[in-house]
Amino acid sequence: MNKARDFDQSVIGELRALLGDRVSTSAAVREHHGKDESYFPYAPPDAVVFPHTTEEVRDLVNICRRHRVPMIPYGVGTSLEGHILAIHGGVCVDMSQMNKVLAVHEQDLDAVVQAGVTRKQLNEYIKHTGLFFPIDPGADATLGGMSATRASGTNAVRYGTMRENVLSLKVVLADGRIIQTSRRAKKSAAGYDLTRLFVGSEGTLGIITEVTVKLHPVQAAMSAAVCAFPTIQGAADTVIQTLQAGIPVARSELLCATTMAALNRYNKTSHREMPTLLLEFHGTEASVVEQAKMVQELARDNGGLDFQWATKPEERTRLWEARHHAYFACLQLKPGSRAISTDVCVPISRLAECVVETTKDIEKASMPIPLFGHVGDGNFHLVILIDPDNPADVKEAKALNVRLVKRALAMEGTCTGEHGVGIGKQPYMREELGDAVDLMGDLKRTFDPENLFNPGKVVSI
Amino acid sequence: MNKARDFDQSVIGELRALLGDRVSTSAAVREHHGKDESYFPYAPPDAVVFPHTTEEVRDLVNICRRHRVPMIPYGVGTSLEGHILAIHGGVCVDMSQMNKVLAVHEQDLDAVVQAGVTRKQLNEYIKHTGLFFPIDPGADATLGGMSATRASGTNAVRYGTMRENVLSLKVVLADGRIIQTSRRAKKSAAGYDLTRLFVGSEGTLGIITEVTVKLHPVQAAMSAAVCAFPTIQGAADTVIQTLQAGIPVARSELLCATTMAALNRYNKTSHREMPTLLLEFHGTEASVVEQAKMVQELARDNGGLDFQWATKPEERTRLWEARHHAYFACLQLKPGSRAISTDVCVPISRLAECVVETTKDIEKASMPIPLFGHVGDGNFHLVILIDPDNPADVKEAKALNVRLVKRALAMEGTCTGEHGVGIGKQPYMREELGDAVDLMGDLKRTFDPENLFNPGKVVSI
Repeated sequence: MNKARDFDQSVIGELRALLGDRVSTSAAVREHHGKDESYFPYAPPDAVVFPHTTEEVRDLVNICRRHRVPMIPYGVGTSLEGHILAIHGGVCVDMSQMNKVLAVHEQDLDAVVQAGVTRKQLNEYIKHTGLFFPIDPGADATLGGMSATRASGTNAVRYGTMRENVLSLKVVLADGRIIQTSRRAKKSAAGYDLTRLFVGSEGTLGIITEVTVKLHPVQAAMSAAVCAFPTIQGAADTVIQTLQAGIPVARSELLCATTMAALNRYNKTSHREMPTLLLEFHGTEASVVEQAKMVQELARDNGGLDFQWATKPEERTRLWEARHHAYFACLQLKPGSRAISTDVCVPISRLAECVVETTKDIEKASMPIPLFGHVGDGNFHLVILIDPDNPADVKEAKALNVRLVKRALAMEGTCTGEHGVGIGKQPYMREELGDAVDLMGDLKRTFDPENLFNPGKVVSI
Repeated sequence: MNKARDFDQSVIGELRALLGDRVSTSAAVREHHGKDESYFPYAPPDAVVFPHTTEEVRDLVNICRRHRVPMIPYGVGTSLEGHILAIHGGVCVDMSQMNKVLAVHEQDLDAVVQAGVTRKQLNEYIKHTGLFFPIDPGADATLGGMSATRASGTNAVRYGTMRENVLSLKVVLADGRIIQTSRRAKKSAAGYDLTRLFVGSEGTLGIITEVTVKLHPVQAAMSAAVCAFPTIQGAADTVIQTLQAGIPVARSELLCATTMAALNRYNKTSHREMPTLLLEFHGTEASVVEQAKMVQELARDNGGLDFQWATKPEERTRLWEARHHAYFACLQLKPGSRAISTDVCVPISRLAECVVETTKDIEKASMPIPLFGHVGDGNFHLVILIDPDNPADVKEAKALNVRLVKRALAMEGTCTGEHGVGIGKQPYMREELGDAVDLMGDLKRTFDPENLFNPGKVVSI
């Protein structure tokens, strides 16, 4: 990792000449931009800028490059591995004012947006079209940020992640060139896949300023169900068999007994406090009934208890809001706590084994540790509740995360299913990917030879 | 483009020491490996080698690098843009003897294969599992070759292309290192997407030796239908509306009247010789009926005539074999001809317009030019039938292709939807991608600094 750099204050004057009052060096604004949802120490940038256009981003990149000042792209600050911490100082490039939907192509099922448009904003904008953007990581993140972290979430089992749902990106490169990574055609074999290279690059290879995303038709019928299981294995087997049968389940979320208890308390509900699947089915009226019936049978064969249904839109919304509140509901299990959120993903055949072994760790832990995840993808999270002022808590949580990651790696899994590398997952990259990590370093040096784009993230050169 | 290089014959001895009689310099073998399905002049390699393991590939890469000899990976030679022509000489690395299926993970819906396994071989191997590998470019290509060219085909509208269906790759790099691009977990956010960088790299960044592909459940019911339309626009609108309605059509192929006539003659069938959609539906019994009914109504609204059904497996197989024979059937329209196959792809909203404008060119042409394609993806092909010994034919065909590509680019399309760049599409890359092409050059230099992997393809440095 390169050393913290002296910040060249003369850059501020040039940025002000470019952006006027859309440059801030106030302590409050800098502090707000120096933290994310992770447990890492705050690392505020030296200044925060708010560009409105790709050309402004280009111009500010040229200014910062001349002064050798790091640039950290910022969406809404909901990342979880320290992605946006200004660990080497520099300028935070807050994209939130680049929030225009530029085009919606209903026939082509795509939309072009500025990077600061959030997923909820886009869905609100297109709701009259009968189309929607499915990727739902919980937080109302920006599409630029979601592209940069290769975000995923509850709908990925059916609709894919940002990897599958970004058609093209506009990117400002380190030398100030503006490129479009691909045409808007649905597929192309025209050379190296630059789009996918920037999806998941976490602001380290270029600054994403526009995103072309795929849209999907809102299905005629949607139905959700809750099903409790005596064992995690039964829940996992149900989902495996569902996928093997080709049933296009739209969501399949696993929540542990502790999470269900936290949700009940937070939402004043009375679900069984057992391992539970939250399922959702999308399709025609007839196919949703058929899908649900087939999954219900599989669940019963695997020890699942009765399905509780949520078929009305408001019931469905309430159910998924509850799921999205899981993180905050869990925080209430230990007042004043912060969470260390883990993020392993394993081949689904190993999921139950991985969860069961992890549960043994959880039982021995000194703090409450809810577990939930996207079982259809083999991806699950622990929410390790720590007192941030208690070094013993932090140490215990870190050790537990290390064991979890090593367990997942031993099962052909990955240290991060969807949160990304940031600074938190770098220590595991070589164990996971071997010499391929060196190729990533080569890519970083090729795209950003002066190491000015979000330095110290993904791969340290 | 770099100049043809002198071939260092001493490399043959070293390769023989490594591979024994799996090194050939015979004229027949070299000639066989010096052509593909394109119209480009033969360019035989100086030698052909047949490795059996990744380690042998590594060792031969090390030998060739020391002698600065180009290496051209080769599957079954069905590429269409000159991908495997040894235009700078060198060693053809024929992967066809690396044809072992290494693992099938039924619960995880994936398989690990050596790069020389073909798609039909894999499907035969796994047919007892209830799973299948869907990507179907027509030819029985190898999975390594299909990865390298980012292949696609008739099923892509539902199942995606190789981009979406490769989980991980084992690759030998230019310096002899062997990397695995990703773990086997279904998703990951662990750093730059190396997998997608090698998918579509056409052997220019490394040699793919193993492929981990996603498998999909064979659906309970499959049904195919043929529907003729008075106009191309009606057929295109039917497919657009089908996709907008969220109907998960598995295949939606458009064939022009000329193609239908060629197919009738070749297969002794009696389909209407009009623009025609070939459709396929996958799902449960009930959902296939429902899908087909909905599409039938859309087709009728757009002027479509009656559906002819193929519901029995043998009828379906016959229908799709007929479709796959379209290329050969079309060659019969002009005995002794070779085909120049074009490959543009446009946003689907522009497809009918692009096809109709292209039809005007076809009407003016001196040779028969059937048109067919994957209408659900906006991707279509002309089969321009030329007498290869007639320079006027070649000139006319090339001019027609140039106009077609420029038309597609003007409609936000791409010069290649699925065939790849090879040598044939390089002249259009800058018009399509602007400065992004320079990034591709940077990538090539980073991964292959001595320009030994399939030099002169994708991007010339």
